[in-house]
Amino acid sequence: MSRFITPEKLDLLFEKLESLGLDLLYLSDSESHRDVNMKYITGHPEDASLFLDVRNRQTVLIPWDYQISKQYSEVNQLVNMSDFEGGVIAATIETLKDLSRKENPKIGVPKDIPYYYVRLINDQLPAGEIIYDPNNIDNVLDKLRETKSPFEIKLIQESFKISNTIVDNLEEKFQNSNNIKTEMDLATYVENRMRHLGAMSVGFETLVASSARSWQIHTYPRAHPTLQMNRPGLALIDFGVNAKGLTSDVTLPFVFGKMNEKMKKIVETVQQAHDESVEKLKEALYLHEVAEVASSIIERAGYSMPHSLGHGIGLTVHDSPFVRKKPTHEALLKSWEAVKIEQGMIITIEPGIYEQDVGGFRLENDVVITSKGPEIVTNSRPLFIN
Amino acid sequence: MSRFITPEKLDLLFEKLESLGLDLLYLSDSESHRDVNMKYITGHPEDASLFLDVRNRQTVLIPWDYQISKQYSEVNQLVNMSDFEGGVIAATIETLKDLSRKENPKIGVPKDIPYYYVRLINDQLPAGEIIYDPNNIDNVLDKLRETKSPFEIKLIQESFKISNTIVDNLEEKFQNSNNIKTEMDLATYVENRMRHLGAMSVGFETLVASSARSWQIHTYPRAHPTLQMNRPGLALIDFGVNAKGLTSDVTLPFVFGKMNEKMKKIVETVQQAHDESVEKLKEALYLHEVAEVASSIIERAGYSMPHSLGHGIGLTVHDSPFVRKKPTHEALLKSWEAVKIEQGMIITIEPGIYEQDVGGFRLENDVVITSKGPEIVTNSRPLFIN
Repeated sequence: MSRFITPEKLDLLFEKLESLGLDLLYLSDSESHRDVNMKYITGHPEDASLFLDVRNRQTVLIPWDYQISKQYSEVNQLVNMSDFEGGVIAATIETLKDLSRKENPKIGVPKDIPYYYVRLINDQLPAGEIIYDPNNIDNVLDKLRETKSPFEIKLIQESFKISNTIVDNLEEKFQNSNNIKTEMDLATYVENRMRHLGAMSVGFETLVASSARSWQIHTYPRAHPTLQMNRPGLALIDFGVNAKGLTSDVTLPFVFGKMNEKMKKIVETVQQAHDESVEKLKEALYLHEVAEVASSIIERAGYSMPHSLGHGIGLTVHDSPFVRKKPTHEALLKSWEAVKIEQGMIITIEPGIYEQDVGGFRLENDVVITSKGPEIVTNSRPLFIN
Repeated sequence: MSRFITPEKLDLLFEKLESLGLDLLYLSDSESHRDVNMKYITGHPEDASLFLDVRNRQTVLIPWDYQISKQYSEVNQLVNMSDFEGGVIAATIETLKDLSRKENPKIGVPKDIPYYYVRLINDQLPAGEIIYDPNNIDNVLDKLRETKSPFEIKLIQESFKISNTIVDNLEEKFQNSNNIKTEMDLATYVENRMRHLGAMSVGFETLVASSARSWQIHTYPRAHPTLQMNRPGLALIDFGVNAKGLTSDVTLPFVFGKMNEKMKKIVETVQQAHDESVEKLKEALYLHEVAEVASSIIERAGYSMPHSLGHGIGLTVHDSPFVRKKPTHEALLKSWEAVKIEQGMIITIEPGIYEQDVGGFRLENDVVITSKGPEIVTNSRPLFIN
């Protein structure tokens, strides 16, 4: 394996960090705090400290597991924490001091860095300056991940392929008598299928909402051990396949039994919002235009959508960019920027409506923006089960 | 459902926060930053902001999903973010202002809080003071979670029961011919079993290391889709069952085929370290004494253990307390405190040895400290497969 960021994008990143006057950028990833940029910039899957040495254009990685890093990472310098008494924190401190060649280095951090590391850097380099600048540092990283490289697009194809087989399997399975009784049975079936078809892991914990609770946006537990799947009404399964490091994300909605008028209206509105969003992607310049098409369809029908229309997918299931309406709140508007639709983006389109007395319905597919325009790469569609 | 912290412990927490001079304690939990204290103090499973109003002894929760919170949380005040234009951040800001009844409130934060929230609080309350004090704030929270309540101990029993059935199933399965070919097959079998037996979810992603890579401490991917499980040598599976919110954590080691002398020595040393650690738990006063028994056995045999002997389990798989040796590094020693072995603790004992040319072997069981002393509640043991 190797890092996911391209050499050109890594150059761009260093240039941008230099233009911000930074000497170092510090990133961390740990069990309680995941930062997708770690894997993106180094290839190392998890649990590490990373310095970007801006002047020398060097990446310096301090992993918790040196062997895993030797196998997966692609960096200029790999620090073995066993060389330091006191583990990865001691190794991070020594590396920080070593890389800070002046008394008052400027050290950039992403906005969600655990506060602990900010204090640690302050303690170790009292004359140093922590640079917190989400509008530049975080936005630059997000921007780089917004478009995927040909290598990333190739890797994610396998996730789409497995997802599509599973959608077909589900249709076939539910049209015949089957042994899926509970929400958990359905989650288990789908996860077993993806593993059987070669997935490395789930992209995220499979979410199943039978008609008893599909009106809720989240489900807890994600799939319920005893709630019955086949009860009449609206239901859904939301799953992701991680075949080669990048995840797909699809939601397949179900209608069990006969629809009443209220259900029919929700199903038709969601389908229309889905189809017209995809159409709009072909001609729109900016992502928020697409989100606004879906919202206006849903709102004209008398509902409101409690989540964004979609999001990027990749090394993490909620990657940049987000497919959201232009905000109305003044504070949010201040830092808002329109996101251009660009070749290489991989996004979800997932309109949903959730009504406590009727049920919830969400249709989600993945779209790759190619040189020829948007291409729907997954095959999710509503399943009507009588 | 309800919160997990007992009323007595919540009182203790408020008293301690008051003695630190705090007006508020702020906690957050989100997709990129998990804080087990959120679920512990409120019962709300995930994605929220929480204020502890110290003077008024009130818990104030601002969840991303209000419906989930209504169902699961037990707090004094539940804030509905839909009442605020601008979502949960706007709701958090307004709640913060509302609860800060003086100009310069002291607001405590845990050490791993995303830096974003520290800046947000600073921006909103320039005269307020952020209190970063891991030796008190984090330690108090960790200390409260170190011992489990009778309610928590009751809930986790179901996880132990399912784990134990699975261990027995595995022994039976591997003693007969079976269809487990790859690491992934084994992970799938175990996860299907736990779901069939009523688990809500895995406690953590199941880790399988066949002899090809058992010498590595971590595995990535956690279970490999094609690596063969039955190849001669040392192997292991590390899995956790979450039946009712709390997770078990056991590692079952395998020996496939005939052992050579090197393997035999590792297997015997790990078994001895495991057994003598459990014995030591009966008479020791402090956890580090137990860790030191295991380490000295392993070191006397010529190996070193690259991880701690064990850790607490509960709402999260790596809970407090940690079962570690007394540190030797000066900086670590300064903030170190011996941890007394106390009734209500639930910990893992998991000695392991990893040698690149031989393989890795770890035996892990869970122990509850009862009024009558330590009780091993799981039944993991090495499986010898010919």
